[in-house]
Amino acid sequence: MQRIAVDMDDVIADPLSKHLEIFNTRYNENISVNDLQSTYLTEVRPHLREEIMNILNEPGFFGDLRVMEGSQEVLKELSQHYEVFIVTAAMEMPTSFTSKYEWLKEHFGFLDQRNFVFCGDKSIVDADYLIDDNPKHFRRFKGKGILFTSPYNGAETDYVRVNNWNEIRHYFLK
Amino acid sequence: MQRIAVDMDDVIADPLSKHLEIFNTRYNENISVNDLQSTYLTEVRPHLREEIMNILNEPGFFGDLRVMEGSQEVLKELSQHYEVFIVTAAMEMPTSFTSKYEWLKEHFGFLDQRNFVFCGDKSIVDADYLIDDNPKHFRRFKGKGILFTSPYNGAETDYVRVNNWNEIRHYFLK
Repeated sequence: MQRIAVDMDDVIADPLSKHLEIFNTRYNENISVNDLQSTYLTEVRPHLREEIMNILNEPGFFGDLRVMEGSQEVLKELSQHYEVFIVTAAMEMPTSFTSKYEWLKEHFGFLDQRNFVFCGDKSIVDADYLIDDNPKHFRRFKGKGILFTSPYNGAETDYVRVNNWNEIRHYFLK
Repeated sequence: MQRIAVDMDDVIADPLSKHLEIFNTRYNENISVNDLQSTYLTEVRPHLREEIMNILNEPGFFGDLRVMEGSQEVLKELSQHYEVFIVTAAMEMPTSFTSKYEWLKEHFGFLDQRNFVFCGDKSIVDADYLIDDNPKHFRRFKGKGILFTSPYNGAETDYVRVNNWNEIRHYFLK
């Protein structure tokens, strides 16, 4: 059985919209996802860089994120035909461990928790495919990298791109 | 550069002696590591199985474990010649995430935290070697499994065995 590794943030979970909501409320701004094409919030508001990053470290930030549309249904289906692992670079945000684990149990409890991986450098992952929004993780990955579209990665052309979970379904189950 | 994945519990950290100390104090027993050759505490005291397992889930259990003798010095040396990852089946004990992370930062802070991996099924690990006391993790691992001696695994003969960190040093740097 082939194995698919799936990133968490901005692929099955949606931290970006929550991040923007908190930022906009706190700093009386009105920045939308559309304002972040090929860039980051920290580049749009560089003088607030530290404050922007600190939002992600607030307790529980990762605990109530929205589920990316279609990800549950498609992963349920894919897990009939592939071994599915969820692989998140949680070491970058050690305060997120428990929230991320509880979120996965709540929304993706149909997967075996032994298939959850909290790591940093994803080149440690032995899988046939890695679905991720951050192309840096593909550079040393031995399988095939599949880029999940996120506002900031729009200019990246080196990898197969999927724009949503319906396209992932089609790619793997066509 | 070849890559070595190293298990945490009973390889670089020593939960067993702390587990026995707590158990002996709490139940007025005097069981030693020598009493656990090729067996487990839960098999020696089956009527206390649940209580024995619960000790591991107590907050902070993994936060102040002793470091296995020689592991720091040898890993410092190995990391000059190999990529070293620490890989622990933390998903089996989700209450341990933060304690394990902080313990690693304290005692193995010379390793990049991006090389820490909390997982369940270690077949996800892409490495040339896996040093582990639990042979179950070698069965689907594609690299070479190296069995670190622990009381309960004494009868296992299917893998290269190392008895201590000096033997690991010799194996990799001979």
